[in-house]
Amino acid sequence: MKVVVIGGGAAGMAAASRIKRLQPKWDVTVFEASKYVSHAPCGIPFHVAGYVESLDDLCAYDVSFFIENRGIDVRIGSRVIEAGDGYVIVERKGEVEEHGWDYLLIATGTRPAALNVGCRELEGVMCVGSIEDSVYIKERAKKAKNVVIVGSGYLGIEMADAMLRLHKKVTVIEMGSHPLPEYDVEIGELLRRNMEKLVEFRSNEKVLEIEGKDKVERVVTDKGAYKADLVILCIGVEPNVELATQLGAKIGDSGAIWTDKYLRTSVDGVFAAGDCAETTNIVTGRKDWIPLAAPANKMGYVAGSNIAGVDIMYPGSLKSQLTSFLDLEIGKAGLSEKEAVKEGYDVVSATVISRARAKYIPDGKSITLKMVAESNGRVLGVQAAGVGVSKRIYGASALLYKSANVEDFFFTDFPFYPPKSPVWDPLVIAARNLFRKLGIN
Amino acid sequence: MKVVVIGGGAAGMAAASRIKRLQPKWDVTVFEASKYVSHAPCGIPFHVAGYVESLDDLCAYDVSFFIENRGIDVRIGSRVIEAGDGYVIVERKGEVEEHGWDYLLIATGTRPAALNVGCRELEGVMCVGSIEDSVYIKERAKKAKNVVIVGSGYLGIEMADAMLRLHKKVTVIEMGSHPLPEYDVEIGELLRRNMEKLVEFRSNEKVLEIEGKDKVERVVTDKGAYKADLVILCIGVEPNVELATQLGAKIGDSGAIWTDKYLRTSVDGVFAAGDCAETTNIVTGRKDWIPLAAPANKMGYVAGSNIAGVDIMYPGSLKSQLTSFLDLEIGKAGLSEKEAVKEGYDVVSATVISRARAKYIPDGKSITLKMVAESNGRVLGVQAAGVGVSKRIYGASALLYKSANVEDFFFTDFPFYPPKSPVWDPLVIAARNLFRKLGIN
Repeated sequence: MKVVVIGGGAAGMAAASRIKRLQPKWDVTVFEASKYVSHAPCGIPFHVAGYVESLDDLCAYDVSFFIENRGIDVRIGSRVIEAGDGYVIVERKGEVEEHGWDYLLIATGTRPAALNVGCRELEGVMCVGSIEDSVYIKERAKKAKNVVIVGSGYLGIEMADAMLRLHKKVTVIEMGSHPLPEYDVEIGELLRRNMEKLVEFRSNEKVLEIEGKDKVERVVTDKGAYKADLVILCIGVEPNVELATQLGAKIGDSGAIWTDKYLRTSVDGVFAAGDCAETTNIVTGRKDWIPLAAPANKMGYVAGSNIAGVDIMYPGSLKSQLTSFLDLEIGKAGLSEKEAVKEGYDVVSATVISRARAKYIPDGKSITLKMVAESNGRVLGVQAAGVGVSKRIYGASALLYKSANVEDFFFTDFPFYPPKSPVWDPLVIAARNLFRKLGIN
Repeated sequence: MKVVVIGGGAAGMAAASRIKRLQPKWDVTVFEASKYVSHAPCGIPFHVAGYVESLDDLCAYDVSFFIENRGIDVRIGSRVIEAGDGYVIVERKGEVEEHGWDYLLIATGTRPAALNVGCRELEGVMCVGSIEDSVYIKERAKKAKNVVIVGSGYLGIEMADAMLRLHKKVTVIEMGSHPLPEYDVEIGELLRRNMEKLVEFRSNEKVLEIEGKDKVERVVTDKGAYKADLVILCIGVEPNVELATQLGAKIGDSGAIWTDKYLRTSVDGVFAAGDCAETTNIVTGRKDWIPLAAPANKMGYVAGSNIAGVDIMYPGSLKSQLTSFLDLEIGKAGLSEKEAVKEGYDVVSATVISRARAKYIPDGKSITLKMVAESNGRVLGVQAAGVGVSKRIYGASALLYKSANVEDFFFTDFPFYPPKSPVWDPLVIAARNLFRKLGIN
């Protein structure tokens, strides 16, 4: 059997590896347009900030590992320019070549959304997309004085953090009312107050145009204009669905490639995985597009298994995420209140501010945690900011995965360790507060 | 209605608070033998190590808070010396008094197990029991040179850590083959190697006698003798069941007070909660005795609710725990392999050593995580040591609470954040390794 994988990112390489493990005799070819495979764009802010020295380190493994250790035919610098029934046409160094397949996996990822100018269309306008972008941003940042970041989703936050570490003057422009606009105001405002200490944070402000002659000069919004010699666009990503469309594969309402539970597209023999594909939101049970790295890896594993004939269903994702701005950790699993309301749920919520440690271990730090539940008691989501956030988002992710209710959150025996947590965990206190609002106990 | 609570620790005060909230007009009296209520003995090692200044800080709240804010009649320095049908006899400053009850809650906690000499029976022999012990240990430690710690459960580990911070020469004597003897060897040996760098760790060695004339001089084992001017006994605790026995309440096989799902004892109108009471081990579904602070607080909440007429079942505990030795975090939820085998399970296990962060964030640190599952795929327990342990034990506790299997551990969408975790979480890798051993996928 011949398998073609389009895209050598997390999903593509996880799938290829899995297929070769289950079916060592099959031909598995990966076409990757860039020079890198198993690249991790989530690492870009940390490369820019200087934690990561080499760009190669942003790849989980290098090409030779996959070729030599896993027997995968990896072709870098090879862009698939056409996909049809049983074939792809690949362009490499100006030459084109046709390649046949019995199974095709589309793992084409995303590209950053653009404004009136796109990434690197004007000198000094950058995106956080492919890992090569990291080099350009880093180089440009050296001489930049005024950095404007457009958008404050998690990438915008992390780029703002990185630019502060490089001692830049940073302006962040956000259309919504607070950073991380998917989060609720209780968490978003806390983050905003932290950011405003070091960053010019402009909320409820829409960028109209990026201006400049030979290089970027200013960012014009509906409220003003900001001098800029480096502009970083962090306004989201768009799924790369062109090849899927060409093949006649159905595109979901989200704009990403529709898949079933086995990550099959609507076209026979064609699978899709990773950031270009739709899956299920575990909390809502509905189709959703959740382009994040950990789900992408698992989708690759699942798609690879199914291609190789070992059927596994992919249950979907909780959109679990963690980020930080300097010392403030922020995380979320499941739905925020505003997302839940938008999905039509009748919700209650509780927000607790809790010491990060046992009362008797002085440190003055705290965690703010918000829990959102349906009126029947099922928990829909947890968000938090402060210290000790990651373990709460781990605990919440696990319980949300199992459709847990507020009693489950209350009674789960989370471990107590005085220097790291209070004896009544904030997850437990939030659940207990919801008992009252729900009329339980 | 008149409610008497014996013991003003975590369980007793949580129960009393809950009863007064639900039934503000009821008389709720708490008799506490020491001067402290809502005291937290788990904090003793941190008080000794110097993180916590005042002993009062080791109490969640002081007496006046419970009296004035919650309307609870708290009587400190009051020891219940007899309990009978509808009454208790209380001794305070040499005077005795009878006090009636309609409901009685026994929350008498534990006492440290002793050797040939008990706590403070010989000068320099100490226990970690009541929070007053902390003062004695701290005082004694000032002039001590050779400290011997008997036992290396989590208290032994934490006391060894505290003594190192006070620059003492520390010997730890453990009957089992490694510290934290309930853990499996993969984690226990890792901890042992860490401890041996700074502590004389003696394993498979049994203390026969503690010797000394006016004050402690040496600890004699089956393999040698160790000079000591401070001996700290950390060989476990025993439940205080004398009053329960006097009342005719059934004692469970574990030696702690038997309770049903509502935390009722076998005697009408008498409840038990906290470290003196048995509950259910959520993993095995069998009766177990799990004297830990977080479950004790919840048991108090549940017992208080049931006494006040709002029925809540207590599901039990997972024995979730976290501790640390210097920089090494250690944690466990559910059963170790040795515990699972002892319980009669047919088990498989996987141990993974994983980077603590994304591959590209260099720090050289790692986490060792072991997952134990039943042959049908249900996960029975997770243990880990290294960095980033607490979030994995949070995640594992949540999934164990929901009787999750290895697929659930694999597919739970744990959040990925490069500076804090690898994209394939060790919980996910361990579950994937178990797929193979279980013949899944």
